[in-house]
Parts: sequence; structure tokens; C-alpha cells
Amino acid sequence: MAPQPVFALLGRRLRLAVIGGGPGSFIGAMHRQAARLDDAYTLVAAALSSDPQTSVTAGQALGLPRDRCHADGDTLLAAEAARPDGAEVVAIMTPNDSHAHYAMRALELGLDVLCDKPMTRTLAEAEQLYQQVQRSGRVFCLTHNYSGYPMVRQARALVAAGRLGAIRLVQVEYVQGGRARPGPGRRAWKEDPQRGGPSLVMGDIGTHAHQLMRFITGLEVVQVAAEAGSIVPQRQTDDYAGALLRLQQGARGSFWVTQAAAGVENSLRIRVSGAQGTLEWQQEHPQVLQLRLLDTPAQLCTPNGPGTLPLAARASRIVAGHPEGFHEAFANLYADAAEAMAARRAGTVADPLALHFPNAFDGLQGLRFVDAVVRSSAAGGAWTDCATDG
Amino acid sequence: MAPQPVFALLGRRLRLAVIGGGPGSFIGAMHRQAARLDDAYTLVAAALSSDPQTSVTAGQALGLPRDRCHADGDTLLAAEAARPDGAEVVAIMTPNDSHAHYAMRALELGLDVLCDKPMTRTLAEAEQLYQQVQRSGRVFCLTHNYSGYPMVRQARALVAAGRLGAIRLVQVEYVQGGRARPGPGRRAWKEDPQRGGPSLVMGDIGTHAHQLMRFITGLEVVQVAAEAGSIVPQRQTDDYAGALLRLQQGARGSFWVTQAAAGVENSLRIRVSGAQGTLEWQQEHPQVLQLRLLDTPAQLCTPNGPGTLPLAARASRIVAGHPEGFHEAFANLYADAAEAMAARRAGTVADPLALHFPNAFDGLQGLRFVDAVVRSSAAGGAWTDCATDG
Amino acid sequence: MAPQPVFALLGRRLRLAVIGGGPGSFIGAMHRQAARLDDAYTLVAAALSSDPQTSVTAGQALGLPRDRCHADGDTLLAAEAARPDGAEVVAIMTPNDSHAHYAMRALELGLDVLCDKPMTRTLAEAEQLYQQVQRSGRVFCLTHNYSGYPMVRQARALVAAGRLGAIRLVQVEYVQGGRARPGPGRRAWKEDPQRGGPSLVMGDIGTHAHQLMRFITGLEVVQVAAEAGSIVPQRQTDDYAGALLRLQQGARGSFWVTQAAAGVENSLRIRVSGAQGTLEWQQEHPQVLQLRLLDTPAQLCTPNGPGTLPLAARASRIVAGHPEGFHEAFANLYADAAEAMAARRAGTVADPLALHFPNAFDGLQGLRFVDAVVRSSAAGGAWTDCATDG
Amino acid sequence: MAPQPVFALLGRRLRLAVIGGGPGSFIGAMHRQAARLDDAYTLVAAALSSDPQTSVTAGQALGLPRDRCHADGDTLLAAEAARPDGAEVVAIMTPNDSHAHYAMRALELGLDVLCDKPMTRTLAEAEQLYQQVQRSGRVFCLTHNYSGYPMVRQARALVAAGRLGAIRLVQVEYVQGGRARPGPGRRAWKEDPQRGGPSLVMGDIGTHAHQLMRFITGLEVVQVAAEAGSIVPQRQTDDYAGALLRLQQGARGSFWVTQAAAGVENSLRIRVSGAQGTLEWQQEHPQVLQLRLLDTPAQLCTPNGPGTLPLAARASRIVAGHPEGFHEAFANLYADAAEAMAARRAGTVADPLALHFPNAFDGLQGLRFVDAVVRSSAAGGAWTDCATDG
Repeated sequence: MAPQPVFALLGRRLRLAVIGGGPGSFIGAMHRQAARLDDAYTLVAAALSSDPQTSVTAGQALGLPRDRCHADGDTLLAAEAARPDGAEVVAIMTPNDSHAHYAMRALELGLDVLCDKPMTRTLAEAEQLYQQVQRSGRVFCLTHNYSGYPMVRQARALVAAGRLGAIRLVQVEYVQGGRARPGPGRRAWKEDPQRGGPSLVMGDIGTHAHQLMRFITGLEVVQVAAEAGSIVPQRQTDDYAGALLRLQQGARGSFWVTQAAAGVENSLRIRVSGAQGTLEWQQEHPQVLQLRLLDTPAQLCTPNGPGTLPLAARASRIVAGHPEGFHEAFANLYADAAEAMAARRAGTVADPLALHFPNAFDGLQGLRFVDAVVRSSAAGGAWTDCATDG
Repeated sequence: MAPQPVFALLGRRLRLAVIGGGPGSFIGAMHRQAARLDDAYTLVAAALSSDPQTSVTAGQALGLPRDRCHADGDTLLAAEAARPDGAEVVAIMTPNDSHAHYAMRALELGLDVLCDKPMTRTLAEAEQLYQQVQRSGRVFCLTHNYSGYPMVRQARALVAAGRLGAIRLVQVEYVQGGRARPGPGRRAWKEDPQRGGPSLVMGDIGTHAHQLMRFITGLEVVQVAAEAGSIVPQRQTDDYAGALLRLQQGARGSFWVTQAAAGVENSLRIRVSGAQGTLEWQQEHPQVLQLRLLDTPAQLCTPNGPGTLPLAARASRIVAGHPEGFHEAFANLYADAAEAMAARRAGTVADPLALHFPNAFDGLQGLRFVDAVVRSSAAGGAWTDCATDG
Repeated sequence: MAPQPVFALLGRRLRLAVIGGGPGSFIGAMHRQAARLDDAYTLVAAALSSDPQTSVTAGQALGLPRDRCHADGDTLLAAEAARPDGAEVVAIMTPNDSHAHYAMRALELGLDVLCDKPMTRTLAEAEQLYQQVQRSGRVFCLTHNYSGYPMVRQARALVAAGRLGAIRLVQVEYVQGGRARPGPGRRAWKEDPQRGGPSLVMGDIGTHAHQLMRFITGLEVVQVAAEAGSIVPQRQTDDYAGALLRLQQGARGSFWVTQAAAGVENSLRIRVSGAQGTLEWQQEHPQVLQLRLLDTPAQLCTPNGPGTLPLAARASRIVAGHPEGFHEAFANLYADAAEAMAARRAGTVADPLALHFPNAFDGLQGLRFVDAVVRSSAAGGAWTDCATDG
Repeated sequence: MAPQPVFALLGRRLRLAVIGGGPGSFIGAMHRQAARLDDAYTLVAAALSSDPQTSVTAGQALGLPRDRCHADGDTLLAAEAARPDGAEVVAIMTPNDSHAHYAMRALELGLDVLCDKPMTRTLAEAEQLYQQVQRSGRVFCLTHNYSGYPMVRQARALVAAGRLGAIRLVQVEYVQGGRARPGPGRRAWKEDPQRGGPSLVMGDIGTHAHQLMRFITGLEVVQVAAEAGSIVPQRQTDDYAGALLRLQQGARGSFWVTQAAAGVENSLRIRVSGAQGTLEWQQEHPQVLQLRLLDTPAQLCTPNGPGTLPLAARASRIVAGHPEGFHEAFANLYADAAEAMAARRAGTVADPLALHFPNAFDGLQGLRFVDAVVRSSAAGGAWTDCATDG
């Protein structure tokens, strides 16, 4: 029983508030469960809905006292900042067009921030928020949850250790079927560019695929030749996007995302090849990382199985052969961010292994990538630069 | 956001105490995480270790106040029963030889009980405890966690709906490698029959395989022809067991369990055939249930995928294609038991779908099965009866 | 282009006759395709059917001259033996009750023999035929085709090389759905014990599972505790059988076969554990052998992939990653037997790696195993001896 | 036992000559085994090697008479055409730069032709050969063997039957590791553009991926935005290529091929989505076609399993659950082409289901696609037209 690191440092849990994630939200429950799993946070306040009355009712249904159930995010931030026992961390899971606003405000008030992806609706917002995070010194965790899977972390650690040699080729695809039918379906705001951003599929899952690739390889995309568009009749926003990639160090890649593949559930897959071998991971069987090294039979790495590296080992709560899933990966981000927040508050240095959660720079890179794909597509697939500097 | 059912009924969470599961315990953390995931319980007290000092220190490391960190389980039960705000539920995760003692005592004090498996060390204890549970009217949940997986519940619901026709054949195997090396390894008490029970492998994983089979098919084993023994040199307790099965309604089956299969992680698999088709499930890929009906291509059922039946749907927190695992299955038992406990306290009737968690009768059947396997083995594989009455 | 070994030795192909395998026979076409694949045989004569006229017509449809299309097997053997250019090898694929007769007669006439499994209908026939083969000096190949798969041979070679350490545990299952419906279905003679043998499922697929286990482990079964019976209403012969196994060197095992699992295609699987690791193979994905060694990630061996041992390498015609299947495995037996036959005729010594095809001793062991299972079942599952001597 | 269709029509087998495929050639043995498997051809002549002496020796090692073992392809064609019993079909498996030459010559002499892929080295040759085939009336079969797999044919038939609805999205990838190391490796001519063609990876496997996509969807690529290049240091020819695709009827696609993915064996995968569903196939498990229809659990189609359509059924020789592989798929092309050749010779009309083997138009489209990819790459990824007319 490893001691809960936050409790060990602070003698208490972190006081968490949430904005968004109310009735009908899948991701809201996920955030709150992730926060609970490792017991590093206490939920103290919420503004769950854009409807003030729903917001209060839903907060009370979670067991929060009436005075911590706020009508909206701005009210929450103001009220919590004014309390001595107010929230010290805020998790934002609203539609994309308000991420920047709430995050900026929370940082101004001195809170640490957990924010759902994409980090912001627009690239301009992302640049501004990134700068603000840098200035603030606060912890900013972007919940690109796939970075939290043990075998994704194993992949990153294997690449970092040079086990694949110099990275040459990357393939990443994220294929879903949720938007195979015409019409906006659930969460209609996503199909409104004024709320969801310039490219639905890129914001929704393209940034996940991009972050997964960067997280494992440690390489930035430097140029893209891309097309994004809609394949389902009558849809006004992108439901597929493809790109050829040029990455740092001369690596090349292929990128393909869509939410219009009828009947597919959630097929996120990545393959990374270096001079010495190739690794493959797919989200629907997250416990297995295939490692194919030259002149060696293919190996199946598993969480806490033989050869598990420290970055992966700390991301699993369980003995080998017992599956963990989406919740646990999501919770790993919450747990790692909590360690960073607790260390900041305690004036100590966090375990470097805790600092692999996606941050504001990752978020900025995501928006830059979306922007480059959209620009390349508009330019007839021309190779288009993607900035890599912080 | 479905309202938390316990909170909706009681206006508060259930007050939970834990006995066992301290430093070094894998299952202790699992129980506590499972209790937290769906927010139906508040951990209020603990007696985590058989060492009194460790027990207190470890409780404080979990953030419990000093006066709720108890030196041992008996003290905990007495002290909590005496408080107006004392625990109303106790979860027991001690070595097998004290399950019966703590469970009986808790029931006497009026608490509901969650208990790790096997329910007791001996069959005699199991019979006594089962009777006591029946008399008590309290909720008793045995954490055979595999019954909590959405696709196991889908399997049960498919069989119950007659989709496979009359059940004919069952194969179940549970193969691990944790005891492939000589020596007791972790949790040495398990290899001591005075603490672990008459057959290590049967108690540890044989009861899981047996419960999985009963849970899906709804059939009891009526006779076994079995062998149990140790295959690893110098081991004094069973590390493998095999049995041929005769089940109710004339079904036949094969049962095989071992912890001595070097290199294997956690291979629990079941195949059930009826007159109309066959289903297959394996724990290492729990999100997929293969359904093979006559004259139909094999189908892959997935949680919240097309065709998910209500019993499975309520066991998943997530949209199709996003893996859940061991924690979520374990938490399903905690959540369902909490609904039953809350209904009892509120004087309401629980949703019948909530009542599929393993209970004391399941625990009794597990011990009866262990006993029959051991007796048949001693009798040279002779067909040996296994009682089916409650 | 390795030279065709038979051609290299003899300057010609072996002259092959077939008995059985006419219209409607799946296995007849398989034998002839297997014989053709590696170009070691020329089909020169046939008696394809039990109906004399069909036999002749069907032979001509294969392109054989009229005088080599024989009315029945006895006529074929007599006529071919009388010709200077007559068949020198006969392949027998008739119903089980005539295997012994034709094989004995062919051996008497000096032919080499390929024979479908089970070797004979009864154990008495098997003992007689085995003795006759021993006396004859002729090559006798029993087409237990699963022994021909490259990854099955890799498994055998890994065990023989000690890579798993001392063998401890074996699980083998062969589950089909072809007899899930009442009624005899295709090849009604199989359900007649006077033609098919004492136990349908044991002769049809039980002997395959048994041979696969012996081939990989190199161990004989010494005792069984078994049940065989029929689970489908109105069936008069066995459609399932299960057994607990005691093998040489103290190994233990589980055996389960059925043809009544509705909807299942052809699920033959084996798992073998030794002190150092475990291997797993399943016929429906024959290109992959899982190898799980202690303290090592699971490895996937593939034909001609890294680590392929010589016995496996010679059983694959293709570069890694290109699937081979049932035909190729079957053809491997034909090719190996041809090398043995050619060496015998040339007075040379065959490559020892060519001599791993199943032979008359394997066939005898198969019938002994069937007999032991049937006897144990009749004796209420009592442990029953199975002879291991040649 | 379906009668051999060629024998039924002609009363004899087709007389086959081969050019190329001598010692060291993997594909040569494959062609000859494919020709033998279904017994529609008799090999009567060969020119196996570019070295005249080797050519003759190797032919004799195959059992051919000395006068049918020719020193080179031109000699073979001339000599065989002059014989009354000469070859009537030639199979060409030489390096790419001589395909057009031998095929043109064979057609002039009235022979039917089987030719390995890519059809020619250059697009100009392909256009010329295509026209010549059209004029000749002869059968021309291009051995894109993946079109021969039963489940690929099932995919084509499902799409043709409208089961997926209008096709929207296609992903195809062909990833190998054979050229992950610097240096030309085996078959050095492949890395010489004067012999192998303008793009190694595109000719070698890109045309396979392209044909697979066209075969299943029935759609032509109309525009590509592509990059092709070499990722392995010092390589002078392409070892990877990626493209975004615009197909007929507005479909979109992603294409990725490489031979530089260290440790990968032969990962050819395709996913096709239409308005009603998605299908997926991967060459390393060719027996399974995943079919995901809206509102239906994913289905696994298997050869001769439930729901097998006629085009797939005729491509499998075996009962469900028994794997077939690369040889059988290859042989399906040989068998179908033989039916077409026999019908032409007999003046009958072949079964339309026999006419799905790749032909000269498919070969032309392959070279056009290679050309478009190379041109788009040179033009910085600009969208580049690809002709679709015959």
C-alpha cells in the first residue's frame, strides 16, 4: 500500500471544483470518477451545467452543499477564490469555446487547472493560454487521457530508451462511427464551428491522435500535407481528415481520423518504427503493446509484466493480467497532476515520472496541428509548416 | 448523469469500514478504489493489518482520524457499533481463516457485509455463515468480481433469455503462473491449509471459475470427478485441479485451474454451449463476448454496443469502444450491493437488476464445490455429489 | 529452389494410388491436393468410391486412364501390384472400418501406405496393423495433419530443446459444432459404431487432440479418468468426451472434445506448461505460437520468423508473414513420408527431420487412448491405464 | 468432388510453360505450386533463370525433359509455339523489366498469359500491353494474389450487394520490414529503377494495396496527394509512400506502404466504410472478415461459414474453420484463369464468377497509380489526376 502521495505531502486531499460535465455528459462523470479513484482530491464545488438551475440541482445530487453548487463557472471561480476553504484546483469540461475563458480566469485567481481537450477553440486562444500558464507557475493538465495508459507510457519509455533506434515512420489512426449518420446527434454544439472549433473531427479526436504520436515518439510534426472535409451528406463540418506528416529528425508519417465510419466503435491505433524495431498499440486492447525488434520474435508487453519500465509501472494499480481501462488511464493524469500540484504547494520537487501528463504546450501543439491541417487542406494539400517552438 | 442511487435514497453515502487490506495487499487497494468509484460509500473506519501498530499507521495514511483507525477487526466492529455515526457496512479482506469470524460478528451487530472470496476457509463455516446471513436479513456481497464484468452479465442475460437454448456443455479454465516457482511467494498464509483452506488453488481461483460458470449458466454442479494436487516440487498444497462436471439439466462440463503455469498471467476463460449456440469470454480481453449462433456469423458483443441487454448496460459507465477493466467490474459489485443496502435501509425495493451480485448462497456453493473436488480426488476420481439446495 | 528430394533421389515421382475420397468427400480432395503440392507423387490409380460404377467414373474425371480406375480397393491393390508400372504407394481414405483391411493388404503386397485417421476402427485391428508395419519395413504415414503445421513443429522442437523445462501441465481441447443438431448429418457411417468405431467423437477428433499433445510434449498418457457420452438428444454415439490425464514423468492434463458445440467451427487448442514456461497454439490461427517464458514478455513465434527452429523451418514453404494453412500442413506429411519412401527405395538414410510424420505406433497409441477413455467412462471415471509400450 | 472444370471441358489439362522463378526465387515455387494445386495445368516447359545453364539444370530438376528446358524466355516461346504439343499458356515471373517483352511476345504467338505483378516496369509498357491484350482476345491474368483470398472476395461481394451502402472511406496499408536495413538485400534488381521500375515500394507492394482496394470497392482512384521517398539511409529508391486518395463517387481514402518498418512481417490491412457499415480485413489473419453494420454487433465472416456469398464460396476448398492461406489464394487465380482459358478454347462461356481474377486493365491501373503517386510526390503533394478509362 503505497501511501497516497498528496496526503503524504499535504496531510489532506486537494480541493477540487468542476465546471461543466452535468446531466447527459459522458466526460463529466469520467472526470469525477478519475478524480476519486486514487483519492487525491475532494470534490468541494461544482458548476455543472450552462443552465443555472440545472447546475445547482445536479451539484446537490452529487452530495455537495447548496452553497458550493454554483450557477455558472464565473460565479464558481469568484466564490471559491473568496473562501478560505475554497477550491484550489478547477477541472474544466465545458464546450470548447469556454475552455480558454475559464482556464485564464482560474489561473488569474491562482488555481491549478485540469482542462478537457482540445485545450481551446482557436489557435489564438491556445497561444494566449499557453503564455498565461507559463507566467502563472500553476499546474495545467490537459486530459488527453490516452497518454495515461500504462502501455502507452511503456511505448514512450521504450522509445526514450532507444530501444527502437532512431524513429523513422509513424502511423496513427483514430476511427469512430459516432457521426456516420447525418445530423448533429448528441452534443450538437460540436458541429457548430463557433463553439466546437474550426474542424470537428480534428478537435474531437484528431488532437488525441496527434498527442498520442508526440507522446510516444517525442517528435514534433513539422509539416503536413492534408485534406479535411465532410463525407456524410449535409454535414457542414469536418468528419474526416487525412494527412501525410513530416516530423522532426526526418521521420515520416501517416495520419487518418474520422467519426463517420459506420459501425466502428473507437479504433485508435498507432504504429511507430525505428531503425531497430516497431511498436504497435491499439486502444481497444490497451493492455497489450506489441514490440517487434529486428531478429527477435514479436513480444507482447503487458502492464506489470516482464520488462515493464518505471514510467509504465507507476501507471498501473494492479498485478499483470488484470485489465485496466479508460477510467484508470484518465485517473493517471489526475493522479500525476495532483502530485505536481502537491509538490508545488509543499515547495518540494515532484517525482520526474509524475510529470508526463499533457500540459499547455501539448495543448498549444494540438491547436497548431489542427490549424496546419485546415490550412493545408484549403491549399490543395500543399506542404504546410507547423511550428514547434514553445 | 444518472443520480447516485444511494444518495438519491438516503441523502448520504453509506458509512464503510474495512478489515484487512493493509500494506502489501493488492486486493485491499482494489476494494477501496471500487468503493470510491461510484461514490456510494464513505470510508469511515479501518483495521488494515493484523499488526496493531501497522493497522493504525496505515489507517492514518489513508486520511482517517486516529479514533477510526482500529488495532484489529474485533475492536473495530465493537467500536463502530457503539458510535451513532459508526460504520454501517464492513468490507472484509483478511486471510481466509478469519472471514467467517468477522462476518458473523458484523452480522450480529447489524452491519451489512462485503466479503472477499472464498467466503470462508471451511465448508462448515460456510454453512454456518450462510444460515446466519439468511436469518439476519442483512446484505451480504461476496466479491467474486468476475460476475461484475459487463460482458459476463451480457452472457448471463443471453442465457437467461434463452438465446443459447438449453445449456449442454460448459468449459471453464483459470490458469495463472504466479506459483510456478517452488516456495510460498507472496502471501505465505495462502499455502498454509490452516489459514488458506483445504486446497490453495481451489480457494484462490477455483471458486472464481466455479462462480463464473454458475453465474452465466444459472446451473449448479451436481457431481464431479476430480483430481487436485501439486505439480511444483516441494509444494504441500494444491496448485492444480481438474474436474469433469455433471450439471443440472444434464449439462456436462470441463473444469481446469492452476497457478503453476509458468509465464501465464491471468487466463480465465469460459465457453458455454446450448442447443442454439455457444458463447465465449476471456478475462484478459473482457470487453468482447463472442456469440456463435447456429447459421449466423460469429458476433462480438461489446459493452454498450448494439444488442447490449439491460443487465449488461447497467454494468458499464462508458460509451462503446472505451475499455473498462477489473476495477470497474469490482466496483459494480460494490455499487449493486450499495443499492441493495440503501433499499433495505430506506424500506424500499431495490431494482431487481441490482441483485445479481454474488451472495452467501454463492459462497456456500463455492465451498461445497471445493469440498467435492477434494473428496473426489481422494476417492480416485469417483463421481462425487455436490449439494445444490439453499 | 530446393530440389524436390524425391526426384533428386529417384529421378522420378512416386507412383500413388488412392482408395476412397470420391464424390462428396472433403478429405479425398485434401489428400490429392496434399500429394500434388510438393510434386513428389504422381497419381496413377484410384478406387474412389464404394460404388463400383461411381468409382470408375470419378477416376476418369480426375484424368486417370480407364484401366487405372478400379471398381474397389481390393481390385486396385491386386491390379496395381501386378503391373510393372503399378502404384508403389497407396493412400487410404475410406470409412474407418476398412482402413486395417486395405492397409494390411497393401503392406503384404509391398506398398508403402498413407492412411487417414483413426488408424483402424478397433484397438485389436490397430495392434495387428502396428505389428504388420513393424515387420514389413514399409513406410506407414498416418495423416494426423495437425502434426504438419510449422508452429506445431516449432512447439515440439522447443520442448525437445528443453526451452520449457520439465513438462508439468497440458490442456488440449478440440471443439466443433458440426454435430450440434440431432441426426447423423453428412457421412452417416460415422454414427454407426460398426463402421466408425466405439466412440464417434474420440475417433474423429479425440485422436487428433491426443496426437497433437503427444507430438508436442513427447509424453505418453499413462492413465485417464474420463467420461464420454452423447449430449444431443437421440444421438446413439459419443459427441463429447472429457478426461483428466496422467502423463509420463508425472505431468498432468485436461482433455476435452466435442462436436456438439453449436456454432463453433474448428477450435483445436493446446497449452503446454513446463517449469520454465508455457506455450499455446490454436488451429484457427495456426501461424502463431505463443511462448511465455518466465520473466520474459510473451513471444509470438511465426513460421520463418526469428527463432524458427529447423524442424519448423522445413515445414514452411514461404517467407514470414504469409499464411499457410490446412493444405500445407497436410502436404507436409505427404512430403516427409515421400522422403522416407524414396530413401527406403534408394537405400539411403532419410533426413531425420523428415521422420516426424505420425506413424503406426502413433496410430496404435490413438486407439489405445480411445479404448482407455471408453473403459474409464464405463467404470464411472475410475483411473484407467493406457499402455505406452511399442 | 466437383469435377475439375478444365478437364471437364477439354478432356485434358492446360499445357503450361514458365519463364523465371528459378533457384532462390520464392515466387517461382509459389506459381508452380499454385498451378498444381487444383490440377488444371501440366507443366510442360520452363526457362527458369536468366543464366542459360542454370535454366536448363533447374528445369531438369523439376522433372522436365531436356528439350523442354529452355535457355531463355525467347527461346522457350519460339520453340513451344513450333510444337504441336507446345505450351498453350505461359506464366511470367521474371524481373519487372522483362514482363512486357515476354507477355507481348506470348500474345503474338497466341498463348494465354499469367504474369506476376507489377504488370510492367513502366506506364508506357503497361498501356501498350493492355492494348495488345485487348486486341488478342487471349486470357491475361495478373497474379495480384490477395484478390484470391476467400474473405477478400466476400468483401467484394458484400460491397457489390450494397451491404455497406455507398462507399465513403477507404484505408489501406501494406507494411513490411524486409528493407529496414540498408543495402539491397535479396533480389538486388529490385532496387535498380532500370529493372524494378520508378518506385520500388510502389511496384512491389503499393500495387498490391491499390488492387486490393479497387477489387473490394469497385472504385477507381481519381486523384492522389502523395509523398514517396526513402527513409533508410543510403537507399536510392523509395521504401515508403503515403497518399491521400479521392475515389470515384466522392469517396476518400488513406494509403500507406513501406518495406522499412523494422520487425514487421507482412501487414496488409484494409478498412472500407459505407453509409451502412464498415468491413476490415488483414492479410495475416486472412480467414476472418470483420463486418460492422450499423446497430448490429460486429460479425466475423469466415470461409464457408454462415453468410458466405457465392464468390467467396467458390474460392475455398475446405469446410469452415480450417485455415487456407497464401498458396490457396494464389491458386484461386490460377484456377479461375484456367476456367477462362478452357472456355475460350472450348468456345463456351465461362462462369461469370470465374472472371474476377486481376487482368490487364487492373495492371494498367496499377501502373497509372504508381505514376500518379510519383508525380504528386515530385509536385510537393499536389492533387494529381489518375486516369480511370480503359
